[in-house]
Amino acid sequence: MPSADSSRKAKASRTSPELRLIPIPLTDEIHPGDSLADKLLAALRQCRLHLQSGDILIVKHKIVSKSEGRLVDLATINPSAESIAWAKQYSLDARVIELALRESRAVLRRKNGVLITETHHGFLCANSGVDVSNVNGGAHALLLPEDSDRSAANLRRALKRRIGLAIPVIITDSFGRPWREGLTEFAIGIAGMKPLRDDRGRRDSHGYKLKASVEAVADELACAAGLVCGKLNRAPACIVRGFRYEPGAGGVGELLRPASADLFR
Amino acid sequence: MPSADSSRKAKASRTSPELRLIPIPLTDEIHPGDSLADKLLAALRQCRLHLQSGDILIVKHKIVSKSEGRLVDLATINPSAESIAWAKQYSLDARVIELALRESRAVLRRKNGVLITETHHGFLCANSGVDVSNVNGGAHALLLPEDSDRSAANLRRALKRRIGLAIPVIITDSFGRPWREGLTEFAIGIAGMKPLRDDRGRRDSHGYKLKASVEAVADELACAAGLVCGKLNRAPACIVRGFRYEPGAGGVGELLRPASADLFR
Repeated sequence: MPSADSSRKAKASRTSPELRLIPIPLTDEIHPGDSLADKLLAALRQCRLHLQSGDILIVKHKIVSKSEGRLVDLATINPSAESIAWAKQYSLDARVIELALRESRAVLRRKNGVLITETHHGFLCANSGVDVSNVNGGAHALLLPEDSDRSAANLRRALKRRIGLAIPVIITDSFGRPWREGLTEFAIGIAGMKPLRDDRGRRDSHGYKLKASVEAVADELACAAGLVCGKLNRAPACIVRGFRYEPGAGGVGELLRPASADLFR
Repeated sequence: MPSADSSRKAKASRTSPELRLIPIPLTDEIHPGDSLADKLLAALRQCRLHLQSGDILIVKHKIVSKSEGRLVDLATINPSAESIAWAKQYSLDARVIELALRESRAVLRRKNGVLITETHHGFLCANSGVDVSNVNGGAHALLLPEDSDRSAANLRRALKRRIGLAIPVIITDSFGRPWREGLTEFAIGIAGMKPLRDDRGRRDSHGYKLKASVEAVADELACAAGLVCGKLNRAPACIVRGFRYEPGAGGVGELLRPASADLFR
């Protein structure tokens, strides 16, 4: 955790230090009940890497979900007539649609084979984040963690117990976005740091007050992690080193705009 | 530019190398007509930094816009009656609203004092990206570059002329987003690399074919840069070192979803 003194010094020098993104290769498959903290620490030891004070740990949700047993055998799912009809129209798997609907609290759009839902957590994404790629040949689906802030807090606590360091943890998933093509990573669970950096009222290097400057640093960290945690390699986690985060208890809810304040639902 | 050979080797090892984000502090104010390439190279020399083959240069639009003379004296703007009426209702500056409308080709939402437009480039953002903070005490407004892909290509060409290296350039701005709180950085101009990484049809580390995996790497790079190019420091640019980009002529248009395919306008 950056001390008040180092933060003062950094402000005085005015330039951010270099930031490093260090991928954590994980060769082990993750199974339900596995301790993710143990697996990650073993992977770090293998690469002669160490977590340091000031680091942030960023983890793709897939390994979190797997360790929490959020894998569903699609053979056990009986889709409703509605799911079957809609899936048939677009050559989709009705069981996945059924799961996506069960994992949602609202359907935002259902058009041209695209199903955008609001998950129980409040995330707006395709198919409630239900994933069938990469998991046991496609016969299983992987759900998001039930409470991804709690998952982040659990991992943070387990790491602290083992290495004595309280490291912020961010869990991420790739979502599509309105207006822009391509997926990017988003923070879906946070522990140990504030997800938003509020610079309103502070002064920039010219001495001018900043106006509308609330920055979603947790989402920017998630995107940065996405650059080293690609789907094509075995690095489902990474260390961010050199970012002056603001310690705090904030959860992912701070990143979710309430429907009443949203102009685009 | 990563060679085919190094790319083969990287695929074989399957783990991304470490990624570094190196801020470029710029103490000089940028004026219309300044060569951004010269200013950035001078700043790099001062820090004993060098651009290397494989680097990506990421630049906040503000210094690009300033060098291109996109600063507008608000005293020269005569707002329409419509702009005046709407601005008055929400205690806004009618001249800024007027500029935002002039810089737009469509208004998406105008509600509760928030004006979301589609710019001439096709960006969907608040006030067409017109910025009044940080610029000459607020009496001026700073517009986005007229053609931000061209701006990126110009900077890339100027750097190549000076140092003999063809470095991809990404120009960024902070935008708000539907559904999520806080601003993040977005790519608004790109030269020398593909903005999207299309992994569809490729196989992951388990040998499974990847399904919907088009990743907006240019936006993820923009976000990563946002972590070291904060508004509170004098680093309006940074180097990304260690990212295996795909060279190509792609521009920012590839990141913009056509209105006809968009479910949320």
